[in-house]
Amino acid sequence: MGKSLERVFNPRSVAVIGASEVPGKAAERRTRSLLEGGYAGEVYLVNPKRAEIFGRKAYPGLKDVGKEVDLVMVVVAPRFVTAAVKDSVEAGAGGIIIITAGLGESGEDGRRIEAEILDLAAVSGTHIIGPNCSGMFSSSARMNLLGIPGLVGGSISVLAQSGNVIDSLSHYAGINGTGFSRIISVGNAVGVKIHDYLDFLKDDPDTSVIATYLEGIKEGDELVRAARRTIPHKPIVALKVGRSGAGARAAASHTGSLAGDDAVVDAAFRQAGIIRVSNVDELFDVAGAFRSCPVPGGNRVAILSEGGGDNSIAADNAERFGLEVPVLGLETQRRVRPFLLEGMPASNPIDYGGTAEENPHMISECVKACMESGEVDCVYLTGFFGGFKEIIASHVGVLEENTSRELVRLVEQFNKPLVVHTSFARAGIPSINILKEAGIPVFESSERAAECLGALAAYGSSRRKSADARVLSPEPEPIPEVTALCRAVMKNGRKNLLETESRYLLSLYGVPLPDAVLATNAEEACEAAAGYGCLTAMKIVCSDIIHKSDSGGIRLNVSPGGEAEAAFADIIENACRLSTPDRIRGALVSPMAPEGQECIAGMIRDPQFGPVIMFGLGGIFVEILRDVSFRVAPPAARDIDEMIREIKGFPLLAGARGRKPRDLEAVGNILHTLSRIAVDNPEISEIDLNPILVHEQGASIVDSRILLR
Amino acid sequence: MGKSLERVFNPRSVAVIGASEVPGKAAERRTRSLLEGGYAGEVYLVNPKRAEIFGRKAYPGLKDVGKEVDLVMVVVAPRFVTAAVKDSVEAGAGGIIIITAGLGESGEDGRRIEAEILDLAAVSGTHIIGPNCSGMFSSSARMNLLGIPGLVGGSISVLAQSGNVIDSLSHYAGINGTGFSRIISVGNAVGVKIHDYLDFLKDDPDTSVIATYLEGIKEGDELVRAARRTIPHKPIVALKVGRSGAGARAAASHTGSLAGDDAVVDAAFRQAGIIRVSNVDELFDVAGAFRSCPVPGGNRVAILSEGGGDNSIAADNAERFGLEVPVLGLETQRRVRPFLLEGMPASNPIDYGGTAEENPHMISECVKACMESGEVDCVYLTGFFGGFKEIIASHVGVLEENTSRELVRLVEQFNKPLVVHTSFARAGIPSINILKEAGIPVFESSERAAECLGALAAYGSSRRKSADARVLSPEPEPIPEVTALCRAVMKNGRKNLLETESRYLLSLYGVPLPDAVLATNAEEACEAAAGYGCLTAMKIVCSDIIHKSDSGGIRLNVSPGGEAEAAFADIIENACRLSTPDRIRGALVSPMAPEGQECIAGMIRDPQFGPVIMFGLGGIFVEILRDVSFRVAPPAARDIDEMIREIKGFPLLAGARGRKPRDLEAVGNILHTLSRIAVDNPEISEIDLNPILVHEQGASIVDSRILLR
Repeated sequence: MGKSLERVFNPRSVAVIGASEVPGKAAERRTRSLLEGGYAGEVYLVNPKRAEIFGRKAYPGLKDVGKEVDLVMVVVAPRFVTAAVKDSVEAGAGGIIIITAGLGESGEDGRRIEAEILDLAAVSGTHIIGPNCSGMFSSSARMNLLGIPGLVGGSISVLAQSGNVIDSLSHYAGINGTGFSRIISVGNAVGVKIHDYLDFLKDDPDTSVIATYLEGIKEGDELVRAARRTIPHKPIVALKVGRSGAGARAAASHTGSLAGDDAVVDAAFRQAGIIRVSNVDELFDVAGAFRSCPVPGGNRVAILSEGGGDNSIAADNAERFGLEVPVLGLETQRRVRPFLLEGMPASNPIDYGGTAEENPHMISECVKACMESGEVDCVYLTGFFGGFKEIIASHVGVLEENTSRELVRLVEQFNKPLVVHTSFARAGIPSINILKEAGIPVFESSERAAECLGALAAYGSSRRKSADARVLSPEPEPIPEVTALCRAVMKNGRKNLLETESRYLLSLYGVPLPDAVLATNAEEACEAAAGYGCLTAMKIVCSDIIHKSDSGGIRLNVSPGGEAEAAFADIIENACRLSTPDRIRGALVSPMAPEGQECIAGMIRDPQFGPVIMFGLGGIFVEILRDVSFRVAPPAARDIDEMIREIKGFPLLAGARGRKPRDLEAVGNILHTLSRIAVDNPEISEIDLNPILVHEQGASIVDSRILLR
Repeated sequence: MGKSLERVFNPRSVAVIGASEVPGKAAERRTRSLLEGGYAGEVYLVNPKRAEIFGRKAYPGLKDVGKEVDLVMVVVAPRFVTAAVKDSVEAGAGGIIIITAGLGESGEDGRRIEAEILDLAAVSGTHIIGPNCSGMFSSSARMNLLGIPGLVGGSISVLAQSGNVIDSLSHYAGINGTGFSRIISVGNAVGVKIHDYLDFLKDDPDTSVIATYLEGIKEGDELVRAARRTIPHKPIVALKVGRSGAGARAAASHTGSLAGDDAVVDAAFRQAGIIRVSNVDELFDVAGAFRSCPVPGGNRVAILSEGGGDNSIAADNAERFGLEVPVLGLETQRRVRPFLLEGMPASNPIDYGGTAEENPHMISECVKACMESGEVDCVYLTGFFGGFKEIIASHVGVLEENTSRELVRLVEQFNKPLVVHTSFARAGIPSINILKEAGIPVFESSERAAECLGALAAYGSSRRKSADARVLSPEPEPIPEVTALCRAVMKNGRKNLLETESRYLLSLYGVPLPDAVLATNAEEACEAAAGYGCLTAMKIVCSDIIHKSDSGGIRLNVSPGGEAEAAFADIIENACRLSTPDRIRGALVSPMAPEGQECIAGMIRDPQFGPVIMFGLGGIFVEILRDVSFRVAPPAARDIDEMIREIKGFPLLAGARGRKPRDLEAVGNILHTLSRIAVDNPEISEIDLNPILVHEQGASIVDSRILLR
């Protein structure tokens, strides 16, 4: 869909159905911003009650325009929306932006209207933007349909699920003299989805960075896929609310979306290479840094200041945002030292002491030495730069301006980002303005400076990794026997697969499973146990019994012979209390699994991201510490590797403190298979392999549970 | 020492040794700020090379003043410092502020000078401030010895280990029109320590909140004690750097302090009720909020906005900073609803929708309903307040001003804090100024607004808890037998107590221990095992063997009889490879401990905070997950309770998921005893009780290790 949105963002003509000049009205603000924003194409204002609007002819209906229209904005009451869409389609519109609220988010009636207009638009391939959105801005067309005056062009594009966040971003832009390429209020996004916009922006030459505000995510798997396609070309910075219960509540009441577990959001964003932030000002600042800074080749930072306190704070901030503050090599320290007050540390952070206040050029000398050394990937200047002329004397101002020019030159020469924190960031000082105009981010907040550098480094890392981000088994290749099995179970009125069925399903996917025999009577149980000739486990197989151990349905370490006979009888007797003999299939007899690290792997269907695979150590690690990792399916090989390694208990698998290293490949294969099953079989809603005992060679899936929708 | 600092902060006369009028000099800036700052007492400028300074008589030496002087500031080269201190003591000075750097932080010579001046000052009880500090400001005396022009009076007091952080705070204060009560640059703090200043500020009627910047902490236990005394009276907000390795490196090179584990800092601050922040702007903003806001009675917040996006973001921020966003009662929702756009949520966050932009008075109506309900303790307004007149029309400005006045009134009436986030915070808008002038914090950052409310609520909680903060066994009451034991071990040339000695020491403190017998030969071992009549554990007792299990010095689950005999022989044989027979005391035989939750408890001496007690679950919880908690000794009963409960694995002790609840009192008693041992016996440097098996009744200390200094 990406390319075909061209007509929406660069229309030759725009019509407004429901145009108005009544002050304060949503339609008036948008009509005015369109007329005053410099849009050069044809504009048709439609309103049956007026002859003129803002001194222009008003058409009674879109039909009366009598020409093809590229883009239509609809600002009418809900009951008139369907007719407006019909008219637009007939006028050959490429896109329809529906501002009208009170549709899908308000109830059944609204959802019916949404379905109607989608049907109407589908025939002609017309894009529906919104409804319940606040409009759109497209810099290349100088088209402002947001009703926000004063928007200027730039290279940041915004995708937002809240009009008021667009207001905030526009406000910050106004203060900072920044502009936008596109601003899209996605609203209920019944037609064009977030991932469709991403696909357009990915190839949009006017867009260098994408800033997005998300409340509820509806097709998260598509979002992840589109983001992965985008990351090699440009960064995506996302503010996703709903981390907290109340945040989710506020978001839900706002757009009617269902928020899933926030840990899944974090995992999905990390997987896709999306940079996550928590506040609108962060979103603006981080996107702004991407707009103008080179992307660093690593995460090593040099920190410089005339103040030891500021250096200490900056170093803590830097490490908090994932940067490394390496000790500089002796040669670099030797180069830097002549510029420092005697005895001041040159190891990194570099503290030039008070001398820089009178001779600021030593700052650029130190920055040059750091950049040239190849020992750092970016530079973080902290302290009072720009204010030295206030602190010392006005003649220092010129020296600071020269230093700024040299800093700008160094960033260009070495193509390494520089971010500046100074208490004088907002004071309108010429030396600071030189930096800002050259795109060097300058912040009053030391934390924000570190966050921006951290984001630049994280994006650099994601972009480099995107080279090997080939997704494993992305397309469904369903196995007919599995489809048949699921169908049979459903036909049987069941949602839970029996363990025998789960095992069969897993074996069809080539998953190695421990030996097991279904014994339907005591004799068979004894025979099976004798056949294994070792201690065995026995488990009830009965569709009424899901929690086998709670109901006396499991016996472990059973010796062959009499004990096996008694165990079988016991299990069946317990089962009879919860079920009827015709539903009890017997007991699964299997040799006790050899020792291994207990793990758990699973698949769930997240309301936001669809199929998600999960991994963790079992038992208390899951139950009490919640030490689990997630990835949206289908993952890349790298995702599987990362999700195994990112759990806190990973050292238990890796062989910490004299433990044996476990078979990570076996774990990876299981996770990959879970993803394949999820992609192939939409009718499977949940898989729980718990516990898995991971050995030095191989892994034993001791219990498996598969649930259908 | 608290009270006696009165003469330092409110001196009748001040002398400057090393006064100067040479522009740019440290002495010149401070001489000037003293002369120009409005100080009303006598000023004596001392400089043997000048007859006049700034048009005033300059004395060749302090002796030549011929009068008693309350306070002396010394700004001379290191080699002249001792003489200056001698003169000051002779002039009867109550305090000496030493700006001079290059003393203790620079090496042995400097440390010698510091020792000399301390000796000189001790005779007369004169307070030494610094050296290596940047000066002091005292509003009540209008005394500015910092060399920073333009400081005004207020109720925030600052204690800082970095002059450049004082510069930053002063800069923010200048921008925001805020003032200070006292600003103290503590420098090397060889005389007056941080905790001494705290004790003064605690009772200082001009100080309502204490903001402190710390790099290295030298007497952290004293700091914790002084903070505990202060918290019932006023809050302390602290920026402590060194969270990261590089941060610690920068701080260390700056003040020569040794940074301990940052987890201990976090624990100590929490224990003391100190609010911790990470950046100077946060320090300023949070201290500013305390200056003017009522302290809330709980952590429940109402969030209100005209924008759903801002509400969602605010709710996430609120929960992140420890606030609760409760669903409001139906009656409160009913009261609020008439002011909202139809269909907008009133449950909390409250979204009044766009109507507030034209009728801002509904904001104060909603705030009133929330405050009056008793369902929230504070209110968080987010969005565009103050900017409605820009967004809608200028006539709204007056309505916003009226709303501001009403909000101010509501805060006073209900004594509940209100914090405002608005994109227009810095725009100099009258309605915003009304709020700011009344002390209602207004921030451009939503996150900062939440952080300030969170800090207010956290302080309220600490202050309430401080009622039952009586410290357990604060004073040393050494047990003579323990002292004798430690002395004997040291005399023996050892640092490690044998396990028999550790057990004896613990038993002297009344700690219940599992039975055990020291067997010196196989016969005794067999006899002991037979006596217990159950499986036993045998452990080598030998001063050369510390890691008993690694060296084959432990045998578990030993049956009585032949197995006991063989096990003893085996242990002794293994020991002979690492030691000599004369140093092998035998093997400790004890019954295998009954099942219990494995835990670890210990005591370390932290370089910053002194004796610290530690608790965690044993094994992988400590080794891999680092799930441990700390408290500075001596703790209050509440600290012990909290440190047990704050580990992530606590549910394992509390009886989660069908587990048995364990004896928390037994754990608490052990931790209390560790603190007693630490306080009583400074010669003990480390205690490690690992593992402890905690039962439903009681706990078994299975192994103990005690280390002397």
